[in-house]
Amino acid sequence: MHNRALDPRCSRRSPTSHHPPDATPSPVCAGSGPFVTQPHSLVLVSATTALLTDHYELTMLQAALARGTAGRRSVFEVFARRLPGGRRYGVVGGTGRLLDALEEFRFDDDALGFLERNAVVDAPTLEWLSTYRFTGDVWGYGEGEAYFPNSPLLIVESSFAEAVVLETLALSVLNFDSAVATAASRMTTAAGDRPCIEMGSRRTHERAAVAAARAAYIAGFTTTSNLEAGRTYGVPTTGTSAHSFTLLHDSERDAFTAQVDSLGKGTTLLVDTYDVEEAVRLGVEIAGPELGAVRLDSGDLLPQAKEVRALLDSLGARDTRIVVTSDLDEHAIAALAAAPVDAYGVGTQLVTGAGSPTAGMVYKLVARADDDGTMVSVEKKSAGKVSHGGRKYALRRRDARGVAEAEVIGVGREPVDDGDDRPLLIPLVRDGEIVGREPLAAARHRHERSRAELPPTALKLSRGEPAIPTRWEDRP
Amino acid sequence: MHNRALDPRCSRRSPTSHHPPDATPSPVCAGSGPFVTQPHSLVLVSATTALLTDHYELTMLQAALARGTAGRRSVFEVFARRLPGGRRYGVVGGTGRLLDALEEFRFDDDALGFLERNAVVDAPTLEWLSTYRFTGDVWGYGEGEAYFPNSPLLIVESSFAEAVVLETLALSVLNFDSAVATAASRMTTAAGDRPCIEMGSRRTHERAAVAAARAAYIAGFTTTSNLEAGRTYGVPTTGTSAHSFTLLHDSERDAFTAQVDSLGKGTTLLVDTYDVEEAVRLGVEIAGPELGAVRLDSGDLLPQAKEVRALLDSLGARDTRIVVTSDLDEHAIAALAAAPVDAYGVGTQLVTGAGSPTAGMVYKLVARADDDGTMVSVEKKSAGKVSHGGRKYALRRRDARGVAEAEVIGVGREPVDDGDDRPLLIPLVRDGEIVGREPLAAARHRHERSRAELPPTALKLSRGEPAIPTRWEDRP
Repeated sequence: MHNRALDPRCSRRSPTSHHPPDATPSPVCAGSGPFVTQPHSLVLVSATTALLTDHYELTMLQAALARGTAGRRSVFEVFARRLPGGRRYGVVGGTGRLLDALEEFRFDDDALGFLERNAVVDAPTLEWLSTYRFTGDVWGYGEGEAYFPNSPLLIVESSFAEAVVLETLALSVLNFDSAVATAASRMTTAAGDRPCIEMGSRRTHERAAVAAARAAYIAGFTTTSNLEAGRTYGVPTTGTSAHSFTLLHDSERDAFTAQVDSLGKGTTLLVDTYDVEEAVRLGVEIAGPELGAVRLDSGDLLPQAKEVRALLDSLGARDTRIVVTSDLDEHAIAALAAAPVDAYGVGTQLVTGAGSPTAGMVYKLVARADDDGTMVSVEKKSAGKVSHGGRKYALRRRDARGVAEAEVIGVGREPVDDGDDRPLLIPLVRDGEIVGREPLAAARHRHERSRAELPPTALKLSRGEPAIPTRWEDRP
Repeated sequence: MHNRALDPRCSRRSPTSHHPPDATPSPVCAGSGPFVTQPHSLVLVSATTALLTDHYELTMLQAALARGTAGRRSVFEVFARRLPGGRRYGVVGGTGRLLDALEEFRFDDDALGFLERNAVVDAPTLEWLSTYRFTGDVWGYGEGEAYFPNSPLLIVESSFAEAVVLETLALSVLNFDSAVATAASRMTTAAGDRPCIEMGSRRTHERAAVAAARAAYIAGFTTTSNLEAGRTYGVPTTGTSAHSFTLLHDSERDAFTAQVDSLGKGTTLLVDTYDVEEAVRLGVEIAGPELGAVRLDSGDLLPQAKEVRALLDSLGARDTRIVVTSDLDEHAIAALAAAPVDAYGVGTQLVTGAGSPTAGMVYKLVARADDDGTMVSVEKKSAGKVSHGGRKYALRRRDARGVAEAEVIGVGREPVDDGDDRPLLIPLVRDGEIVGREPLAAARHRHERSRAELPPTALKLSRGEPAIPTRWEDRP
């Protein structure tokens, strides 16, 4: 039961029952929880993203509206002061999700009612929010792009009022998805040509899991266990069985027979419920040499994989693959490079960013208009937190062979392309219209190319410095 | 743009336009993204939780249906093999959210269509899923309760088929929320009587942020910055201004004046944009001694807090509070115990579980029926991953003064209460009906009591062993 006492007005909407045809519209306030339950499992919930926002953004808005400064043209920038975990590069994730979320960023009556009842902001601010629609411009690094400390990852240009309220949403999406994409990229690097399977849904928030599957796919994972990521984003899904399936049956033989009969000989059998060797023999006995794969989920994977490979070969199952899935991270994957392993299933470490669960990006005002409309660079002077004021531009400097040499950031103007460089900021929103949508495959392809042009040192898994330096080209 | 190629059939629903009154229903397939955009920012999205599920759960279901074992009465159990990060106790979070999600766990036509088009499961399985509704029983530790290694945190009893598909959803919710609640509890312990403010939304997935605010509140945080947590769960929200507000204005004086004029003298001024001492003087000059608080977000907080306190006192602002908010975790909070600090704002470390971003819980089949209906305990024998078969019961053994001594787990029967003990499993779902809903305040109160009865060693922040041992009472 939610604390409805603080939210007594029910304004959830009920759906028109287009589907299924025999459902009838329910009354508006039918639900006792946050959802209106419909017959036939048709359930809808308000999807506005406008309250995925920190309280202070709206109080700042109120004060700026009252002061007459809310309309000042402003430039906000998303950047990371450092790469967490001694990473050599970061990977931008979440851009596509952010554009979707931006489109839904409207203050509907339910949201306005909440803000009013709880006196979050005053009446003029509520009035302003009621017609909110972002009408400005956004540029950003393409999704999947590698990034470095101080890379200007997102540039939001609009009135202060329109941009200030997007801080939390932009950071939440980019910080989580980029943390996962960055970890995933290191894992697919370590895996080389062997496929990586994302299977960490259970170790993170249920909706974060969907975003994690998407981010992993961008960074080179081939499939996910998460069905919602399949439905929402078209990420290929995969999976066969858990220990519970074996334990459900009277014997491992019964379980394997049931699985092979139903899912086919190409299925993956989980062989470590009891004794691995016996299970492998049993699997090949039941499925024959066409057995698709066996999965190892415990124990010392390196020697075990060798033993299982030898056993499979001795049984004639030379094409049966070996999938390993036990607490893997990029280091464990790398340590298995010499083992006869065919695929890696990665869970916890992927969705928790392999030790760096957030990318640590911030959203800072870097320029704003004066009363006469002149744009002024701004930056705070706090101890220990360096910011660089001014509208930024960026390109990746590359040598004649196309290898990245530096992240060049122009302040107030575009840096000069020396002939082999690549501009990094692409238009995402123009006059409020989303122009940067792209298929997920495009982000995946961008990542592949971006990583391929980094110097070899970028692919080291050890803690270290960013693979290329960040250079500033200030206004002359 | 999502990969619509894999999902060509549009079956999103559009809402009836109850509100606002002048909106008209839009055609069913109006949206190009995952949402149907409505006039006046009215947006709805399917909320079914059924695909927040790993692919293998449905393939196991298919094979078990075909084999005739899907209906076997089964007991699944959620537990954690260890407490991550050397914690002395864990805190159960997410129970209430899980019950909400369970209620929405139905395979609607859109979900079934996805499963069919992608050949995830066969026709008989789709048919079975189309009428899925959980009809079994669930018991669990109350939300907010302390837990220990092997505590049976959730017991799901139903057919194998009904329970196996809930694995991912249950674990996602409990693992994330419990990780945050556990970290939050250590922080509120370290803070003592001083309030803790949750402000980490920007450092985690946008929907995880809402759950994190809720979990933190259960574990003693007083407020959150997250507005959606206010709307959905009634968590009190708070916030005033960021550096961008100061930088928007021509001077700090302009900014502070604007803020105090609009938000009142009781507001919290952020005083570290330029020079802290000047800003504090300016704040008191503008707001007078009624200034609510000043916020420090950078620098060495311990000496700075002392200086600011002395300065505020010297200016007569003896009631003006000091809020600190820079990269705090439980250790930093503890280190400020002797500083004149009045409140802690905690962000990144809270939402990322202060080094342990997932609770590491697993969902295991521990008992199931034989063909003749006899329940059989089951457990796998994998190397290094110990499981304990059998239906569990649990109580917290307490001494005569009410101090917790041990977690006593009965296998197959309830442990014997020695007179001062407290049973830990409460009914959450009975015959498919949710019976365990409670106000969020009840979970918050439970946590307070549960933590208070732990031995003093539980509250140590250093890495160590669980505060009480887990003892097994097996069947005689």
